[in-house]
Amino acid sequence: MARIVMKFGGTSVADMDRIRVVARHVKREVDAGHEVAVVVSAMSGKTNELVGWTRDASPMHDAREYDAVVASGEQVTSGLLAIALQHIGINARSWQGWQIPIRTDNAHGAARIMDIDGSDLIRRFGEGQVAVIAGFQGLGPDNRIATLGRGGSDTSAVAIAAAVKADRCDIYTDVDGVYTTDPRIVPKARRLKKIAFEEMLEMASLGAKVLQVRSVELAMVHKVRTFVRSSFEDPDAPGMGDLLNPPGTLICDEEEIVEQEVVTGIAYAKDEAQISLRRLADRPGVSAAIFGPLAEAHINVDMIVQNISEDGSKTDMTFTVPSGDVDKALRVLDAEKDKVGFDAIQNESGLAKVSVIGIGMRSHAGVAASAFRALAEKGINIKAITTSEIKISILIDGAYAELAVRTLHSVYGLDKT
Amino acid sequence: MARIVMKFGGTSVADMDRIRVVARHVKREVDAGHEVAVVVSAMSGKTNELVGWTRDASPMHDAREYDAVVASGEQVTSGLLAIALQHIGINARSWQGWQIPIRTDNAHGAARIMDIDGSDLIRRFGEGQVAVIAGFQGLGPDNRIATLGRGGSDTSAVAIAAAVKADRCDIYTDVDGVYTTDPRIVPKARRLKKIAFEEMLEMASLGAKVLQVRSVELAMVHKVRTFVRSSFEDPDAPGMGDLLNPPGTLICDEEEIVEQEVVTGIAYAKDEAQISLRRLADRPGVSAAIFGPLAEAHINVDMIVQNISEDGSKTDMTFTVPSGDVDKALRVLDAEKDKVGFDAIQNESGLAKVSVIGIGMRSHAGVAASAFRALAEKGINIKAITTSEIKISILIDGAYAELAVRTLHSVYGLDKT
Repeated sequence: MARIVMKFGGTSVADMDRIRVVARHVKREVDAGHEVAVVVSAMSGKTNELVGWTRDASPMHDAREYDAVVASGEQVTSGLLAIALQHIGINARSWQGWQIPIRTDNAHGAARIMDIDGSDLIRRFGEGQVAVIAGFQGLGPDNRIATLGRGGSDTSAVAIAAAVKADRCDIYTDVDGVYTTDPRIVPKARRLKKIAFEEMLEMASLGAKVLQVRSVELAMVHKVRTFVRSSFEDPDAPGMGDLLNPPGTLICDEEEIVEQEVVTGIAYAKDEAQISLRRLADRPGVSAAIFGPLAEAHINVDMIVQNISEDGSKTDMTFTVPSGDVDKALRVLDAEKDKVGFDAIQNESGLAKVSVIGIGMRSHAGVAASAFRALAEKGINIKAITTSEIKISILIDGAYAELAVRTLHSVYGLDKT
Repeated sequence: MARIVMKFGGTSVADMDRIRVVARHVKREVDAGHEVAVVVSAMSGKTNELVGWTRDASPMHDAREYDAVVASGEQVTSGLLAIALQHIGINARSWQGWQIPIRTDNAHGAARIMDIDGSDLIRRFGEGQVAVIAGFQGLGPDNRIATLGRGGSDTSAVAIAAAVKADRCDIYTDVDGVYTTDPRIVPKARRLKKIAFEEMLEMASLGAKVLQVRSVELAMVHKVRTFVRSSFEDPDAPGMGDLLNPPGTLICDEEEIVEQEVVTGIAYAKDEAQISLRRLADRPGVSAAIFGPLAEAHINVDMIVQNISEDGSKTDMTFTVPSGDVDKALRVLDAEKDKVGFDAIQNESGLAKVSVIGIGMRSHAGVAASAFRALAEKGINIKAITTSEIKISILIDGAYAELAVRTLHSVYGLDKT
């Protein structure tokens, strides 16, 4: 007997037929004797419709009212799934965020979960009742509905799993796991059996859009073992009810991964642009003078490269932003030019960032060198490099993105089955 | 300065354009210095869609889950109207039933309002804030959403008006008031300036579908002055902001109606069927033996006519049911035949009930006689008659329904302007 949180996203609850399939997934776990909480998103498309109405009502709308409107999507799905479960003989009831309650902070529209009282849910598990919980929402300190921001249902699921001390949090989605890289680019990409939280964080923030970054952070902090798996497989196919290793990818503590690969995956992000500031004054506060105003303008700066200056007086600074933000970033920097103090500004769009990710590289030398050598052999020029303990990111011309991903996937032996 | 509750039904908030018109109606009252609470229904069609989904999920669904799903429609409208009001400079916020809270009993799907704490609303009126309240819903004793049944938003509005001691409750709808009879049948039908609660109750339950019966009962008990008026008129047309007599019909205490007409209106209901039981035993308990089983079978019995028996041993009993329920009613009665003890059963469908309503008839003799004479002159045969203090109902062949309504409308002087 285990305690399991199951989360189903928008495409998994898109209509009543899909909701009935979800009910069968839940029934399988209940029949196996497990205690189950289910977290649901709104029907796919529904949230966009509701958001569209709030925009139509006013372009500058009250986030608290936005939350009241948009949270209704998950409310509907939770009730419908509870009914569908009851229809096939499962004792179930719906829970809205305010009923549990899931306490959030006051940042309406992008709230953070502060506290979940899991006691009532746990008591009802004991009575054999399945909890069907509306994801993406909680109750703010002002006693009003607060939503967690787009993709927040993943975060709801992980937070509830932590609150009820679940053995597993299963994220059902429209893919069947986390892959070594994008299978559309590398047909030989393999589904990972396991991936460490830290690696998944890098994968998630680098464009592998399987899981929301915040939910992975939360899972890491609370050590919630999280499975990414498909809601589109037959609920009763062999192995689907496997307690320890259901089909999918387990995101877990690195200690649980016995045979650690050096490199786990290759991520990429296209449509990057690079901005370089030349001959900056090399003094304290200059970085803050650049990135403060960019952050205020809501420009998401990604890679930052600053080299040590030759004579200790002037330096160069390079960073990347999404291509669509280049013009805005240049305007911001131009306005700050006197304060920051730089000679010239250069920019280039149409770049790609390719990243090699793996916890194993902490204890293995030469991982970066292999990447540089392999890319050089294909004639791919490296424009900038940043590294962390478990990641190497390389900025290249966007035209070579797919070639670079395939090359690196092969170099680190990820093509092998 | 007055305190006003404004209620807008589904057709009045059908889309964002309609919601913007509603916002202008609200702005007019706020600009006049009034304290305003607004009660909204779901966008028209939305409740049917949600109900359809719950039925698809299971034909026998948990009413508590039905409530969670269906109440979301009003939640959306309340948030959107609050945003639209803020957009035109009105301080407004949405309220869900559970936030106020509007306490109901536990009869999910058809709950009754038990108590409303109006203190927070009143405090915020003092701060100049408009309350936008999701109608049709409250919070049950189980801490779950409970809906009031179809049309419940009228009841929400009247209950809130009573809780905050409003000077007026304005029910905005797609008609501009209550008429002496159906204008589709009698083009000379006039809009009433005032109608007494008791009269409106008879009009509402007899098929004039302007207001839900429960809301009129509640208005009568709490003496809430209720205006029925149109949301489709230009919000800023002359007279729309009139405090004492806005365009529409005032439903009020009879004492407020100075020049009482003898007859206020003519109501009708078609598709009635009559069932007669012949030579019943004339003993205590026989009525209960008939109507108990019919009520259990959810058959809505309307007129009941029992005549005094000639010799004190046998009597006849006639009653009406909707035509669609005749077969079911006959089956129920057949099963009870031995217990009830009757000789024969007769039935006739395709009948109509025409009713003459007016508080003034309490103090005027001859009202019934005028009706009988007028119908006789047109050759309309009367099949059955029932009367109350303020109403005469006459059962006739359905083919004569329109003729009877027009005849009676004219006889009682309602054609006059």
